[in-house]
Amino acid sequence: MTAPAQVDIREVGPRDGLQIEAPIPTEAKLELIAALAATGVGRIEVTSFVSPRAIPALADAEQVAARLNRWPGVAFSALVAGLGGVRRALAAGVTRLEYVVSASDGHSVANVGRTSEESIALVGPVAEMVHRAGGELEVIIAIAFDCPFDGPTPPDRVAEIAARARAAGADSLSVADTVGTATPRRTAEVVDLVHAAVSGVEIGLHLHNTRGQGLANAWSGYLHGVRRFDAAAGGFGGCPFAPGASGNIATEELVYLFEDSGIATGIDLPATLAAATLAADLLGRAADSNLLRAGGRLHRAPGR
Amino acid sequence: MTAPAQVDIREVGPRDGLQIEAPIPTEAKLELIAALAATGVGRIEVTSFVSPRAIPALADAEQVAARLNRWPGVAFSALVAGLGGVRRALAAGVTRLEYVVSASDGHSVANVGRTSEESIALVGPVAEMVHRAGGELEVIIAIAFDCPFDGPTPPDRVAEIAARARAAGADSLSVADTVGTATPRRTAEVVDLVHAAVSGVEIGLHLHNTRGQGLANAWSGYLHGVRRFDAAAGGFGGCPFAPGASGNIATEELVYLFEDSGIATGIDLPATLAAATLAADLLGRAADSNLLRAGGRLHRAPGR
Repeated sequence: MTAPAQVDIREVGPRDGLQIEAPIPTEAKLELIAALAATGVGRIEVTSFVSPRAIPALADAEQVAARLNRWPGVAFSALVAGLGGVRRALAAGVTRLEYVVSASDGHSVANVGRTSEESIALVGPVAEMVHRAGGELEVIIAIAFDCPFDGPTPPDRVAEIAARARAAGADSLSVADTVGTATPRRTAEVVDLVHAAVSGVEIGLHLHNTRGQGLANAWSGYLHGVRRFDAAAGGFGGCPFAPGASGNIATEELVYLFEDSGIATGIDLPATLAAATLAADLLGRAADSNLLRAGGRLHRAPGR
Repeated sequence: MTAPAQVDIREVGPRDGLQIEAPIPTEAKLELIAALAATGVGRIEVTSFVSPRAIPALADAEQVAARLNRWPGVAFSALVAGLGGVRRALAAGVTRLEYVVSASDGHSVANVGRTSEESIALVGPVAEMVHRAGGELEVIIAIAFDCPFDGPTPPDRVAEIAARARAAGADSLSVADTVGTATPRRTAEVVDLVHAAVSGVEIGLHLHNTRGQGLANAWSGYLHGVRRFDAAAGGFGGCPFAPGASGNIATEELVYLFEDSGIATGIDLPATLAAATLAADLLGRAADSNLLRAGGRLHRAPGR
């Protein structure tokens, strides 16, 4: 226990935070990415290479990708939903990719027009294509807790997908509470099962705060060994199946949670608050972030 | 481990949720109390017997107290700040009382015009008066984490106050994150110290979601043995030192967290959402509750 406690937060605001919003100009996205890069965050999921008809807000994926060389210190990644998206991403020079597998058929078909099994079957070909280009593939297991169509997801199903995705070539894995229904104990149960299914791989958590549970789930995941977390500055994002609900857990609230608990994030809190404020300005609506409204601690504990 | 897991939530909306709001009519408060009583919650902190100049919103404490016999199944309590308030509460027939001791001088003087030590010295006389009337006294240790004036509160100071309050006659104790700056690890540290200082007494947690950390802190407290929690339907309430910030943790989000984790609350979630909606209507502003916006789970896990 001599290693200092730390976590690795991936900023997903430019992708998950924007995907259900009205499109904003590419230049505005680059301004947001610049603000996020200035926070010290090491990884940013910057766009999706998916159908521009399905996600108009991210139709400029190539244009965004072409401008990322300004920030050589940041590991940029993009989300893909199939082989066509992988081809586009690789052609655009983005080689760190996230491929989504929904744990339920209902969501999988609605999301990508394929069953869950059909999506799993694509992990191998996707991984091969990514690896041939020298890239890295993360498989994100969506709907890891509840499906708006099919009901609760059996935790064993999530562990099974994790094991099969790993065997098929996934370099890393994340577990996603896509609709924001998870709670701390269920988070711990799923994390434990996935860890057992794919020992030796670091598991990430992708959490939404739709029902206010996001940070509690993050802490529960941390206590069960998770060290990789997705978050979006300002808490933007959200699922079309939960209208009016909040989105991803807010990066600034997650940074505050860990830093105040003595766990390093490498991310500057005031810079994150500035990026969250910028995101709100660009989107023309208030961020869903209590911390942004309240500000940080009025005093800092000495030595923290 | 044969006892079923359960927690005991105290609804504090009529007191903490209303205290910084513009006063609403007594009849409106009784309507809210009726809605809360219908949720199945066993304990409601219903008002404060304090200076009506300091807290105009609760100036009708006697009028509210006179009407509580409608709900014989609910344990109503009230907050007091000194002996005058105890006298008023007992005269009004409220014998379950919460007396606040701030852990910092800065907040204590601002709040009640007494130092922290002077407030501790009053626990004995307050307890004696309450016990003579056949009542029960809880001491709430405010500013248990950070003070807006004095900076971080030493956790040992919180444990010391707990031990002294217990020795002076407090029947139960709560630890309050008054300004909503706590995080899960610090919550656990303080809870552990207080448990060690007053073994045999159940400790309650009074948490605010000012920086989005409230539910994570509640879960952390639960993992460290806390079984009593304060919450306010709709997440109303708030500290005048953190303008624009959200208030207490929302009862509905806390109920969702525990029930979905297999921990019984005895509280009906739809009824709590109805009470939160009523509170928002009465106050004329939106509740700060993600769950209220999103609704409960779309499907329930079988058997949960």
